[in-house]
Amino acid sequence: MRTYFDCIPCFVRQALDSVRMTTGDEQVQEKVLREVLRLGSEMDLRRSPPAMAQRIHRLIREITGAKDPYLEVKNRYNRLALEMYPELKERIETSADPLEAALRLAIAGNIIDLGVKTSIKELDIEKIINDSLTADFDGRRIEEFRNAVSRAEKILYLADNAGEIVFDRLLIERLPCEKVTVVVKGVPVINDAMLEDAEFAGLTEIVEVIDNGSDAPGTILESCSQTFRDRFEEADLIIAKGQGNYETLSDIDKDIFFILKAKCHVIAKDLGCEMGEMILQRGKSFDGIVDSVKEAE
Amino acid sequence: MRTYFDCIPCFVRQALDSVRMTTGDEQVQEKVLREVLRLGSEMDLRRSPPAMAQRIHRLIREITGAKDPYLEVKNRYNRLALEMYPELKERIETSADPLEAALRLAIAGNIIDLGVKTSIKELDIEKIINDSLTADFDGRRIEEFRNAVSRAEKILYLADNAGEIVFDRLLIERLPCEKVTVVVKGVPVINDAMLEDAEFAGLTEIVEVIDNGSDAPGTILESCSQTFRDRFEEADLIIAKGQGNYETLSDIDKDIFFILKAKCHVIAKDLGCEMGEMILQRGKSFDGIVDSVKEAE
Repeated sequence: MRTYFDCIPCFVRQALDSVRMTTGDEQVQEKVLREVLRLGSEMDLRRSPPAMAQRIHRLIREITGAKDPYLEVKNRYNRLALEMYPELKERIETSADPLEAALRLAIAGNIIDLGVKTSIKELDIEKIINDSLTADFDGRRIEEFRNAVSRAEKILYLADNAGEIVFDRLLIERLPCEKVTVVVKGVPVINDAMLEDAEFAGLTEIVEVIDNGSDAPGTILESCSQTFRDRFEEADLIIAKGQGNYETLSDIDKDIFFILKAKCHVIAKDLGCEMGEMILQRGKSFDGIVDSVKEAE
Repeated sequence: MRTYFDCIPCFVRQALDSVRMTTGDEQVQEKVLREVLRLGSEMDLRRSPPAMAQRIHRLIREITGAKDPYLEVKNRYNRLALEMYPELKERIETSADPLEAALRLAIAGNIIDLGVKTSIKELDIEKIINDSLTADFDGRRIEEFRNAVSRAEKILYLADNAGEIVFDRLLIERLPCEKVTVVVKGVPVINDAMLEDAEFAGLTEIVEVIDNGSDAPGTILESCSQTFRDRFEEADLIIAKGQGNYETLSDIDKDIFFILKAKCHVIAKDLGCEMGEMILQRGKSFDGIVDSVKEAE
């Protein structure tokens, strides 16, 4: 997905939120803000929004010297999500369609995204979970996803944020774990999940977890390690979680299922859905091949 | 009021809204956006937000060649407000305290501000009016205002937007009209009221109306004509309507009553009030002199 004009005021606001999170020094905040505006005035709008976000967060790290400003936030949301895990697992196991319930909860987990919202009230989470379990959700897509998973040999699950990764575990547990590799970021950026978050969530005990070597809040292939790129190439199914992964991979010719909540107007417009909608969307080049998949089985 | 960091993403969004309003040509929109970002990266934050807005709207006029992009919007809101005028006047005349009712309605009119919101649903206006007539409002301030008006010899009423200026007329009719001069902008900027809007609202028939010679969405004295500055100097009471006038005059040593609705977090914080609050606020240097005024009468 390209960068839309509407992404630009949002970059500036996000940069301000992030640098405030990192330092209380207003001179540093001003320096970052001015540099972000200058970068923005020269940016390549054909690139995806996370390409700009990557530059902004590099800049904040460089100027402030802070390597992982969201560490505390990530730990807090990890703990919060893990506290909920046993109950959520129970709800999945007792539901009529556990895969569907797990998919719905993985999307509910996508709400925990400090890149879009500066803070979320922890109390909202319970409501989000209940809403996610009952909201409209395209049943045909779920079948398509189920078929693609059962057919695939090598599945890469591209994780999104800390905290959310506990919800991802609920879904990953419903997948054939021996075929699944979970991918986290290589360098801390915003609240994106790292190897330690995957460990905290207990994922390293049930699947292989690798990092992509990159500091982009999404999956910008040319910014990732060769090791990751090889794995991406070899995989026959990609499960890509969250807005950042959608923004960076929506134009890639590969069998990808995007799982996210459309949290901003730009994404909703690009997806052709309403704001706040729960999305399980197959990548353009493989979209609509559900029938041939069913035939093959 | 200085420019806060939070004003900056808002400038970028406002510039985008305005250039979209002016032209559908995306290349022109991009050019404006990039130039606004560049200007922002070098801006003087000690100046008030309307100083930056003035530069942005000059830029849009220069690049697009459009002299008055909001003309149609202004005319529409003028007509809408004028349709409501007879009923509102009746409500004022039949209320227990007509000056207070008129003050409340002048604030209600301040909601019609396309500089802050891109569009308002016309249906909301009725609700805003009813809410404004019943919301909490500082009675002590109203007395202070009443006293200041009756004491003053030369009153300048700095108007804000088109449409809103019809609501201003309701208040101006409750003031001693022979002492009042209404001031509009000298050059079209956003939806700020011009001479023709004052005429349309019927103000030119009841008070003197002058323009300030400036294209700033507020009152930046050094940007105004010498004629206006002399009148400002001579006046013993200024009634300043809307956020732009508050932002540009809040630090001026002069007896000013600011009348506005606090429509953004930055203004609310600067005023020490809640978002959405109805504000009748006396300028810092004259604040709290209500007792001595009473004594003088």
